[in-house]
This record gives sequence, C-alpha cells and structure tokens, in this order.
Amino acid sequence: MRDLRARWALEEAGLPYQTHLLGQGDQDKEEYRALQPFGQVPILEEDGLVLFESGAIVLYIGERSETLLPKDAGARFRATQWLIAALNSIEPFVMNVALMDIFYANEEWAKLRRPGAVAFVQRRLSALSKSLGDKPYLDGDRFTAGDLMMTTVLRILKHTDIVTSEKRLAAHVERCTSRPAFKRAFDAQTGDFRKAA
Amino acid sequence: MRDLRARWALEEAGLPYQTHLLGQGDQDKEEYRALQPFGQVPILEEDGLVLFESGAIVLYIGERSETLLPKDAGARFRATQWLIAALNSIEPFVMNVALMDIFYANEEWAKLRRPGAVAFVQRRLSALSKSLGDKPYLDGDRFTAGDLMMTTVLRILKHTDIVTSEKRLAAHVERCTSRPAFKRAFDAQTGDFRKAA
Repeated sequence: MRDLRARWALEEAGLPYQTHLLGQGDQDKEEYRALQPFGQVPILEEDGLVLFESGAIVLYIGERSETLLPKDAGARFRATQWLIAALNSIEPFVMNVALMDIFYANEEWAKLRRPGAVAFVQRRLSALSKSLGDKPYLDGDRFTAGDLMMTTVLRILKHTDIVTSEKRLAAHVERCTSRPAFKRAFDAQTGDFRKAA
Repeated sequence: MRDLRARWALEEAGLPYQTHLLGQGDQDKEEYRALQPFGQVPILEEDGLVLFESGAIVLYIGERSETLLPKDAGARFRATQWLIAALNSIEPFVMNVALMDIFYANEEWAKLRRPGAVAFVQRRLSALSKSLGDKPYLDGDRFTAGDLMMTTVLRILKHTDIVTSEKRLAAHVERCTSRPAFKRAFDAQTGDFRKAA
C-alpha cells in the first residue's frame, strides 16, 4: 500500500501526522473521488491543501527535509530525478509482473506474457543496478527521496526473486529499509491495519 | 518521443536551448548509459548538471517559469501532482495499450489481453475526465506543467479513439496543443528529425 511512502517520508522529516483509514467502499464514494479522481490511497491534507499521488506527497514533505531533498540545487534535482525514475521507468514494469501474479495468474494471456514481462523488468533492473554500482545510494553517499521511492517500488516484487537476484539492488533495499524512519513507518502502518481489521 | 516534453517546457519558459540528437546505436553506448541508465531520451545538460526523466526535466525548467509552476505553494504542488499523475497513474496504462499495438500486435497474448487493457485505461480516463469537468485545465483556469505532461501522455493514444471519445479530454488536448509554445516545440522537433533523416 502506497501510504507507506508518505508515512516513511513524514518519519524521515520528523513531522507529526495523523492517519485516517478509508472504510470498505469509501474509495468509490463521490466525496473521496472529489479529492482523488482514481480512488487510490494515499492523499495528504494540510491546512486546506489536499494532494494525491504518492510521488507529489513525498516531494511536498521533502521540501521540509534536507534528508529527502538536499538544499544544493543539483543534488535536489537528482533526488527528484530518481524519484520519478522509480515511478515512471521502473514501477510500470514492476507492476506489470505483480498484477499478473496477483490478479491474472490463471489467465491464458498472463501465462503467455509473463516470461517476456519478467525479462523486460530484469533488463531495467540490471541497468539500474549497474548505475548504482558500488555506491550506497542512487546519487552517491546520501540517502534521498529518490532512494525512498525506489525502495518502495522494488519491494513490490518481494514475492519473487527478481530483485533479490540483483545483489546490489537487494543490498540497497536492505540498507534503506534498515533506517529507523522506515521501521517506524512500517510498524505504524501494520498497527493501523491491525486496528482496522 | 519524450524530448517533446522538454522542448515544450523550454518554449513555455522562454528559455533558449540547443538540441543534440543521438545517432544510431548511441543509446546503448557506455558513455550515454553513464548519463541515462536506461538508454532513453531526453536528457538535459546545463552547467555541468545532467538530468534524465522527462518529468524531472520539466520540473527543473518549471522552477524558472510561473506558467509551468505557479509561485503560490498550493498551486505549485497541485501542478506537480498532476504531472506525476500523468506519469504514474495514466501513462503506464496508456503505454500498456500502445506497446501492444506497436510491438506485440501479432502476439497471441496481446490479442487476448487488449480488450481488458483498453477497458482499464478507459476507466482511468473516464475518472480523469470527470475530475477535469468543465474546467479548461486540470487545476482550474491556469495551464501548468501538469497539463503539459498529461497532454503528451494522452497523445500517445492518438492512433486510437480511446482519448477522442472522451470529449472533455479531447478538448483539453486540443486546448493545450493550440498553445504557441507547443507549436514551436513540435515544429522544432519535426525539423530536427527531418534534418537527421
């Protein structure tokens, strides 16, 4: 669930927040669709501003956190670049495989297509791994909003060995999810879901 | 080609720029992959800063253009939200259909899958159209970087009637592509490609 991205960013920024979980069917109600046209989570509300799209929410929070978006203009834009790379150059191909596994596993087209879709995402991840190289983070020595977003995207495939077989990417995910802010966000999400269930 | 996004943003911002087209096979060369891990276009270079991802490039240019990113913080983040919605909530599903039509038209899986993929993108576009409503632009009366990006994403399906059958979206694309900056960018792109061919 993409609310983890917003929670993690808020924890990195050290900003207090309150969560409000949608109930069954809320995402298709008129009043939620007026805030989020596609009925997805998360949205962020602050002082009358309502934002959707996890990427935009992380960038919004990032303006108050030098950890997420460094002050130096070049480093800040490279962090934004990696955040968008996660959302536009990696996630679509990751989701393509994940949706086949989750929703379409018994469909004939998915059985025929899956090997090609896996091969495509493997090529993308191999290129990403090469770009990461021996650096700890995508832009070098510092964790940024780009690493946050890429980590949440790579975790989508944790039911497969597609990411774990790329050792440098697997180590990157491990490095990022070892951060105390990730752990707090993850525990808070798990706690909220348990309360709701 | 996604360089149109960068060209259009530069034209809206009134910034001069020079283009450098890749030659055959350049995108797989080591030196280009060092700048763009996935071998795609465009990249932007300025004063030693190299950025890839068309979304990040448009946001970078947008910081020097109130047309693209309004000064008001709320409006600026909503523009960013729509830009990311184009890249993450619309483009993956648009590309899913486009890739089937362009690269996989004769594949059995694509024949089986296309109706479902079209139905999915139609639902997304119907929700987007409802959100646009009778406003001229996604966030209201003003064109922003969000409209720029959404327009370039919707144009990917111009070989089909999927967008044109959503009258409000079709009118939005028409409104945005009627802008002089779009026309200049489009003509410049066409001219560059003609010279290269």
